[in-house]
Amino acid sequence: MKAAQFGARLARAQEAMGHAGVDALLLSLGADLPWLTGYVAMPLERLTMLVVPAAGRGEPTLVVPELEAPRVVPLPGVFALQPWAEMEDPIGIVTSLVDKCVGGSPTLAISDRAWATFVLRLQATLPGARWRPASEVTAPLRAVKDEAEVDALAAASAAADRVADALLAGEIALVGRSERDVSVEITHRLLAEGHEKVNFAIVASGPNSASPHHEPGERTIGPGEAVVCDFGGTLAGYCSDITRTVLTGPPPGELLRIYEVVKEAQAVGVRTAQVGELCSAVDDAARRVITEAGYGPYFVHRTGHGIGLEEHEDPYIVAGNSEVLVPGHAFSVEPGVYLPGRYGVRIEDIVVATAAGPRALNVADHALTVLDV
Amino acid sequence: MKAAQFGARLARAQEAMGHAGVDALLLSLGADLPWLTGYVAMPLERLTMLVVPAAGRGEPTLVVPELEAPRVVPLPGVFALQPWAEMEDPIGIVTSLVDKCVGGSPTLAISDRAWATFVLRLQATLPGARWRPASEVTAPLRAVKDEAEVDALAAASAAADRVADALLAGEIALVGRSERDVSVEITHRLLAEGHEKVNFAIVASGPNSASPHHEPGERTIGPGEAVVCDFGGTLAGYCSDITRTVLTGPPPGELLRIYEVVKEAQAVGVRTAQVGELCSAVDDAARRVITEAGYGPYFVHRTGHGIGLEEHEDPYIVAGNSEVLVPGHAFSVEPGVYLPGRYGVRIEDIVVATAAGPRALNVADHALTVLDV
Repeated sequence: MKAAQFGARLARAQEAMGHAGVDALLLSLGADLPWLTGYVAMPLERLTMLVVPAAGRGEPTLVVPELEAPRVVPLPGVFALQPWAEMEDPIGIVTSLVDKCVGGSPTLAISDRAWATFVLRLQATLPGARWRPASEVTAPLRAVKDEAEVDALAAASAAADRVADALLAGEIALVGRSERDVSVEITHRLLAEGHEKVNFAIVASGPNSASPHHEPGERTIGPGEAVVCDFGGTLAGYCSDITRTVLTGPPPGELLRIYEVVKEAQAVGVRTAQVGELCSAVDDAARRVITEAGYGPYFVHRTGHGIGLEEHEDPYIVAGNSEVLVPGHAFSVEPGVYLPGRYGVRIEDIVVATAAGPRALNVADHALTVLDV
Repeated sequence: MKAAQFGARLARAQEAMGHAGVDALLLSLGADLPWLTGYVAMPLERLTMLVVPAAGRGEPTLVVPELEAPRVVPLPGVFALQPWAEMEDPIGIVTSLVDKCVGGSPTLAISDRAWATFVLRLQATLPGARWRPASEVTAPLRAVKDEAEVDALAAASAAADRVADALLAGEIALVGRSERDVSVEITHRLLAEGHEKVNFAIVASGPNSASPHHEPGERTIGPGEAVVCDFGGTLAGYCSDITRTVLTGPPPGELLRIYEVVKEAQAVGVRTAQVGELCSAVDDAARRVITEAGYGPYFVHRTGHGIGLEEHEDPYIVAGNSEVLVPGHAFSVEPGVYLPGRYGVRIEDIVVATAAGPRALNVADHALTVLDV
């Protein structure tokens, strides 16, 4: 990314600030900061904060701990750098910048993921301010990916696909190992495939597969079980996220039927994700397949979430979301059915809405895979 | 950990709330929640929040997304579980709980690391409340580790030591590899040694070693360079954090002298960390060694930070901190000297204050290691 591209994003953010009546953005943890500057704040107790005044009211300034300043790649003309020394007070510095640029009783929009402790301290030093989450300004902008961002998501998805391919090919041993062991192996493989960071590697076997966000533990995987593997990381800043459910031997009970229902729901969800559709319509289409098969009460979560610099971001594929899909929207389609205490199935791909129709970035096989154990 | 132990911690937190005039704790991201319940909230957009009313004003209640509820290990008598379904409003649920238990114009203490977006939404639904960071209540309690916690920190440190031993023994190739490659190998080794998560693996070579929080990149490590390796993760919930600086061949210029100065400063810092000493005195003692050697301006950070369930927590070993060390305080001692554009050296151990004197949990060799390359 060149300074000019970040500069163009900044101009769009400032335009959106104008429409939203926001006098300054205060960006810390989360993806707004790297989206605008390429810089990721460290999630620690030393404050990093980019102060972005509304257009024409001063230069954006990145307030950063002195010992982290060498990590910042400067973007001349986009933002100024203001390192603070170990014994200085960063809250005072941010307060002065806000007072100088937008003064009075400003409306300030702060990173959704900024720490509460910094919000409270800034509220004390800026008592006249009104506060809003920065996502009101940035989320609609970040949700629409440009070509380079789609390429980055595709590269991350391809890396995750290679790990999924290994899983489906039986190259990752399951039976007789603990969920945690398998999770660690998936973590290693995601890193070996180029991710700089692994965000999660859920391995949920047998009855645990009925818990959508199961924490992999000491349970030993047995034969004839469903194993939900949901994993992803960050590659060149952009996130991957894929789920495949495999069986360790012939499936018990109605698992075979459930697998086919989820597979169909997932495919219908992807096909529905056309430009111009409502996000809620994608959720509805996938959900209807599951409801009509009689498993509606067992699909206990939304169909998907946006993805980009963050694992979960706009647009959310959920009932009630009347956002309309436009080219560049990127999101997961991941229906599931979970029978408590018995088993669960989930299948997930990342999809991009394009003028030519939905483009699935994950292509690892969706067919039922019964591993020969 | 048994329910009774968590219950005892809860009672201590409620006693501290009484002293601090806090009517309810609202715990989300960060370590206060697992310290009190064993449960770690997922860092995502679905709110998890434990509402802890002051003693005698109602039962603590964990508000958790329904699909994450199976991850919670219940602690009967310690907290109630209140899952919220995908289309419910968790902010409304927390607001009702607060209104019911502490009503009126309560003083609420919220997790330091709770997301800003949740703070702002709760401020809107609880307009009469005064807000404080939860650390005012919890940090002094969490800073003093009990015996089981010290054992957990020792186990995490021992695992990190084994990776440091491999580094010092030349088992991790450096010259000719990128910093990133080495960082990935250290990450793999930390996981193989039992960490469930790696928090950072800084590899800073040559001129990059002069940047204390360098992000490992594509730079190829050469011969005759300083390589600062600072890495840690989480093992059974508790953090490790160690730094060793190795040389890839005979040291350039005054690097040898700087290494000995930093090694001496680190040893003096550890020796000073006696029960009854001020935190600031430990910083001062380590800093004086470096200042007297003429490198004071190049030691640009504090001497250390507390460690436990979080990588950085109280007590901070920094000028101006008049906290007195008591048995069970656990923290890093990690002085460094950084000559911009040239090289840097840092040496770090985790130390616990005990009645018998400071106990270093890291024992990997401190002597100058010149790798034979």
